[in-house]
Amino acid sequence: MLRGLSGAGLGKLDSDEQFIELAAKYGFQAVDLDARGLIERHGLEGARELLASNGVVIGSIGLPVEWRGSEEMFREGLKELASAAAAAASLGCTSCCTYILPSTDLPAAHFMALATRRLRTCAQVLGAYGIRLGLEFVGPHHLRTRWANPFIWTLQETLDWIDAIGESNVGLLFDAYHWYTNELGPSDIEALRPEQIVHVHINDAPNVPVAEALDNGRVYPGEGVIDLAGFLSSLHKIGYKGPVVQEILSAEAPQGTADSLAERSKAGFDKVYAAAGLQ
Amino acid sequence: MLRGLSGAGLGKLDSDEQFIELAAKYGFQAVDLDARGLIERHGLEGARELLASNGVVIGSIGLPVEWRGSEEMFREGLKELASAAAAAASLGCTSCCTYILPSTDLPAAHFMALATRRLRTCAQVLGAYGIRLGLEFVGPHHLRTRWANPFIWTLQETLDWIDAIGESNVGLLFDAYHWYTNELGPSDIEALRPEQIVHVHINDAPNVPVAEALDNGRVYPGEGVIDLAGFLSSLHKIGYKGPVVQEILSAEAPQGTADSLAERSKAGFDKVYAAAGLQ
Amino acid sequence: MLRGLSGAGLGKLDSDEQFIELAAKYGFQAVDLDARGLIERHGLEGARELLASNGVVIGSIGLPVEWRGSEEMFREGLKELASAAAAAASLGCTSCCTYILPSTDLPAAHFMALATRRLRTCAQVLGAYGIRLGLEFVGPHHLRTRWANPFIWTLQETLDWIDAIGESNVGLLFDAYHWYTNELGPSDIEALRPEQIVHVHINDAPNVPVAEALDNGRVYPGEGVIDLAGFLSSLHKIGYKGPVVQEILSAEAPQGTADSLAERSKAGFDKVYAAAGLQ
Amino acid sequence: MLRGLSGAGLGKLDSDEQFIELAAKYGFQAVDLDARGLIERHGLEGARELLASNGVVIGSIGLPVEWRGSEEMFREGLKELASAAAAAASLGCTSCCTYILPSTDLPAAHFMALATRRLRTCAQVLGAYGIRLGLEFVGPHHLRTRWANPFIWTLQETLDWIDAIGESNVGLLFDAYHWYTNELGPSDIEALRPEQIVHVHINDAPNVPVAEALDNGRVYPGEGVIDLAGFLSSLHKIGYKGPVVQEILSAEAPQGTADSLAERSKAGFDKVYAAAGLQ
Repeated sequence: MLRGLSGAGLGKLDSDEQFIELAAKYGFQAVDLDARGLIERHGLEGARELLASNGVVIGSIGLPVEWRGSEEMFREGLKELASAAAAAASLGCTSCCTYILPSTDLPAAHFMALATRRLRTCAQVLGAYGIRLGLEFVGPHHLRTRWANPFIWTLQETLDWIDAIGESNVGLLFDAYHWYTNELGPSDIEALRPEQIVHVHINDAPNVPVAEALDNGRVYPGEGVIDLAGFLSSLHKIGYKGPVVQEILSAEAPQGTADSLAERSKAGFDKVYAAAGLQ
Repeated sequence: MLRGLSGAGLGKLDSDEQFIELAAKYGFQAVDLDARGLIERHGLEGARELLASNGVVIGSIGLPVEWRGSEEMFREGLKELASAAAAAASLGCTSCCTYILPSTDLPAAHFMALATRRLRTCAQVLGAYGIRLGLEFVGPHHLRTRWANPFIWTLQETLDWIDAIGESNVGLLFDAYHWYTNELGPSDIEALRPEQIVHVHINDAPNVPVAEALDNGRVYPGEGVIDLAGFLSSLHKIGYKGPVVQEILSAEAPQGTADSLAERSKAGFDKVYAAAGLQ
Repeated sequence: MLRGLSGAGLGKLDSDEQFIELAAKYGFQAVDLDARGLIERHGLEGARELLASNGVVIGSIGLPVEWRGSEEMFREGLKELASAAAAAASLGCTSCCTYILPSTDLPAAHFMALATRRLRTCAQVLGAYGIRLGLEFVGPHHLRTRWANPFIWTLQETLDWIDAIGESNVGLLFDAYHWYTNELGPSDIEALRPEQIVHVHINDAPNVPVAEALDNGRVYPGEGVIDLAGFLSSLHKIGYKGPVVQEILSAEAPQGTADSLAERSKAGFDKVYAAAGLQ
Repeated sequence: MLRGLSGAGLGKLDSDEQFIELAAKYGFQAVDLDARGLIERHGLEGARELLASNGVVIGSIGLPVEWRGSEEMFREGLKELASAAAAAASLGCTSCCTYILPSTDLPAAHFMALATRRLRTCAQVLGAYGIRLGLEFVGPHHLRTRWANPFIWTLQETLDWIDAIGESNVGLLFDAYHWYTNELGPSDIEALRPEQIVHVHINDAPNVPVAEALDNGRVYPGEGVIDLAGFLSSLHKIGYKGPVVQEILSAEAPQGTADSLAERSKAGFDKVYAAAGLQ
């Protein structure tokens, strides 16, 4: 498993260089960032060199298609997808992710039909470039009732949806926070095959009742109450070998310099990896 | 368009022969019945002869797969599907239909995902035998809240679902009662292409407020308040050429002999076809 | 059916305006051209106005994806597809076409597998913009042996391939020359459903043995030996209502001004439409 | 990896009991046999008990659908598929396999289109029962020209075909003989992900030039020239954990009792597993 960082948890980053070098400095092997933007800013060779010289790969890109809104928005975003996928592929990245809000103002069944068709098309385009699509189920209770109609938020529902989408390159983005807020345990991970997991997010939860854990109330790995040792060792046990990327969503920007936050992230990873019996 | 009868509206039928002969006697060209059962009772040649000698074709068979319940039920039913499709095909029938209940006790989005996958598989199997799958949206208001969660009941939702299922041989079963209880008009039919319609049901509604029209409170064509002239002429206008099959769901069995009910059906068809300016 | 022109047969055209105005001047209702280029040159509103003021629609755009070569070429082209489809849709065009060469230097079965996957992806992207994909089977005998391995060139093979691609928005581009060089007749058209035909090309063949008719040896409608009356009346009979676009592929550019060639085209259409008993 | 036996290589077997007990006696953990037949002969509980009491699972069933012939044959077989899949699933088997002949008397591209559609339908039906479909590429040179037109026989072609079929539950049946006759090496296996392999066959080749190795000229593992140590260690290295089932196709039935042949099979497995550094 590759240790990874996203921008969420590092405060204000000034440049791609800073982000990638910080990741390398603190022992991370992957970063989640916009591959196409990186190439636009540095050229293809520059981007490759920046990553390679720091020994860092891109963990995953975000899906540049808004599939949750109007057909018009979907069509606008779809125009960007092939280029974004080609950019990711040119930098060796093979994963693209999106999250599923657990409720919606649209009629739930109808929205599920629309979203199934839209994500199938996205998966096909990504697949043409050797890229997999990871779907992130989102567990925090407050979001389940945030919009008028419940949608889906459980692991099983997401697996069933992946079956309905019906493309071989679709799997899970498995986030520790959503595993926790769904009150799942190691055995739920161990029931999976590794290829069902496209990408992993790691972060921790404050010591509040699970039903009160807010989506943007996350803390650094090892600083909260999630059984991250169990999370990581289960992933390792089933043979997952991809990135485990930190994503700290918080209401306010974290205090401190990016360097100090990256260092804090490393300390968190060290702690929970050790607890899991990994390197 | 072929005039057709189903068993619903003819009271108690004693035999296939009675059903098919009554249809022929009163000028109907199609019957909806279980093709496989017909072959089991009469042999393939006997079944063909019974239909041919009466100048009647099978309009559509019912989908023998329960896709709305457990995975186990789905798997049980799927075992029957290929044989049922082969039987229908051997009698020249090219359509198989199922209806969509407008609410469900299952979480709606999850159920939509499951149902999408299941109906895709059904459509693939049917397609191997040259048979199309017609999905019937169901409009009566009382059914929309009959179970805990709203599912889908509109024409547009059903078309979007057909897109999500993503198989070329899936279309609509268009039923006059659901067209009426959705408060649609001729222009909604005229916006369709004929190949989007796999099968048509005809029946009429009592003179009660539309929101109070019960699913099993249907009356014979021409005896109620639905604009069946508009319904039929729109279907004809867009070029629909398939069966228009009477389906009278009622709380109590209709009074009278099967013969008298078939005669009444013919009178209803004559009236509404004439009003539509058709034969 | 809409009478249509493509650039093939009009010699040298100086501008979009000239092409569209000539089409209008000689009674054509459709032109086949690159929608995205038209918008780039005239702006969206300018392009719409140019078409609308001449009473002309776009019949079909060409598929901007090379699916017959390397995976790299496919990926390059795919980046353009969504934008091209969006452009076409913004001008009201709902069709995109590509042709199938009847032989290939690649191993035929392997190439069929690759091409099936590629065209499925193209169809999905086009479908997101409401656009259908038309596949043109190509009949001339010399092309069947032009490359090392026979691929497909018959109507039935193409229909079977469309089934294998498995997307609802894929159909035929039906070209009179390929109908002729496959030695098909009106009954082969009459066995189709109109929705199976996405687009139609019209042109004529010189009076040589059919096996010697060259792909780039076509002549204007009505100036050759193809039974275009039978071709058109069959298309009309089954209910095809889309564009019938002239495409004259010839080894040398035709003689005369674009205006004179458009006039000659009109004369050809008038002759064969009359022979078909159409307007 | 599970050691497994098929009937091919055991001479004449008198009963299911004999087959399963012999497998157990000689340390095999899997057998390839017809699950539905086993249930028909022993009842569901009897079949389960027979397997469980011998500590043996079913490795894979054969696909009961002839997809290489006429549409009629395909439709006939498809009627059996769901029941066969349900039977396999009821005994815990999750795999179903078929082989690809490397040449065909049908036009290759057209046959590829037909076969793609047919196998997609099979995969969908199998998927409904949690069963994967394994496609076996077939390497012996003499079969590549046995019928009029080359079809496919390489690993890469088969992977590309699996992509074209486009269902997530389709993968490879990887047979040592076809790996050898394609002149592949361990690195070709190591380039695969384990989930791409549905099933494995093992056997050996006589010491003749590779181009002369006959499909039905196979010998027992360890008695020939195939680098089975490399074969097995590569499979192990990438994480393949499924059955490795012996399949000895030979022109004449092997000499000896089933017991002696099973013993000989065990000796072969012991030898090549040891050479691979496995158990």
